[in-house]
Amino acid sequence: MIEAIGLDADDTLWENETFFRVTEAEFTALLADHGDAETIASRLYDVERANLVRYGYGIKGFTLSMVQTAVELTDGNVDGRTIGRILEMGREMLAHPVDVMPGVVKALEGLQERRLILITKGDLMDQERKVAASALAEMFEAVEILADKTPEAYSRVMNTHDIAPERFLMAGNSMKSDVIPVLQIGGWGVHIPHGLTWIAEHADTPDHPRLRELATIGDLPALVAELEASA
Amino acid sequence: MIEAIGLDADDTLWENETFFRVTEAEFTALLADHGDAETIASRLYDVERANLVRYGYGIKGFTLSMVQTAVELTDGNVDGRTIGRILEMGREMLAHPVDVMPGVVKALEGLQERRLILITKGDLMDQERKVAASALAEMFEAVEILADKTPEAYSRVMNTHDIAPERFLMAGNSMKSDVIPVLQIGGWGVHIPHGLTWIAEHADTPDHPRLRELATIGDLPALVAELEASA
Repeated sequence: MIEAIGLDADDTLWENETFFRVTEAEFTALLADHGDAETIASRLYDVERANLVRYGYGIKGFTLSMVQTAVELTDGNVDGRTIGRILEMGREMLAHPVDVMPGVVKALEGLQERRLILITKGDLMDQERKVAASALAEMFEAVEILADKTPEAYSRVMNTHDIAPERFLMAGNSMKSDVIPVLQIGGWGVHIPHGLTWIAEHADTPDHPRLRELATIGDLPALVAELEASA
Repeated sequence: MIEAIGLDADDTLWENETFFRVTEAEFTALLADHGDAETIASRLYDVERANLVRYGYGIKGFTLSMVQTAVELTDGNVDGRTIGRILEMGREMLAHPVDVMPGVVKALEGLQERRLILITKGDLMDQERKVAASALAEMFEAVEILADKTPEAYSRVMNTHDIAPERFLMAGNSMKSDVIPVLQIGGWGVHIPHGLTWIAEHADTPDHPRLRELATIGDLPALVAELEASA
């Protein structure tokens, strides 16, 4: 009944949001003369949101948004050294180590009888780097890096891999990106909340018969078996 | 014999490099107080090359490299307004119209009996935007956006679409990215030079039995038919 399982990567298989938060804190400290941390973080968020449509998700767009926020917040008076430091912060993010989260390897081992597809969004090169560094690639049949996790993008993945949506289950930490669009195309959605999730990824929990919530990815093999048994 | 044809997009199906050159000219003019155009362009090129490994190809990385070059060239004395203008230039590039090159539609029509795959590299969201804006998507069986056009990346495309490399032909303007790696995995490579090609994409023309050169994409259907007839 569940033939293929999609797994989100950032904050589902490995830590990610924490690197953005650490960098954001450093960014607000760098510009502390121009406002309190909360105000600066809020300005940055507004710039990021407005830029999503052109930059998409990922560290390069985030870095460009930090630079833009610094220019706007200082009315063009930011100095070049501060800009240089922001660029460096972005490059440090692109080099951060990949911390596979507890329970992930065991959960993936317990799901090897299904077709597993890693489905993530963000910068192509950075996501490929993280997949390689995680050493998890061989546990997946395929890796799909999407510009955005829309219902249309998930449908394309279903077509590419010849999967019927009703036999597809997607698990991840973002209700907005990993769960709702998959429910919309007729698949199963499993929400595995992470303590840190970007506000732009938040969405209300819908009331839906094909939605499940898990405390940890470690519970996923048992859930899949249970769904299978009750089918 | 030739079952599937891969086509590069930037400067093969539509203009691209010209937008980088126009922006580069504006960038050197913006920083004219800090050096002549040739010196500044050469500094920018060095920064871009050094950043390729972390940023990959595309406009976001190019914009970040322009910002970095401005900071370094001025020893950190560049003002925020100049940085703001550089960011704007990057956003303008991301919004540039897509000019499909002459002869492309007719050539693609003449190749519809084969499996056509658009294979490009760069920013995921920007490339998807251009594919959509070109109105060419329906002429292709699939669109593959790669972080880099290495032999390994082409092999992955062959696997995904179940194509034998010896029955695959790739056509594009970059000897380095479109031709040589495909020859290396056992496919056919067709070089269609474009007047403007980024120096980093240049490579010597190898002497190879499966390499062909065409003056224009309009000649591709006839070449494919000829290869087929002589097989």
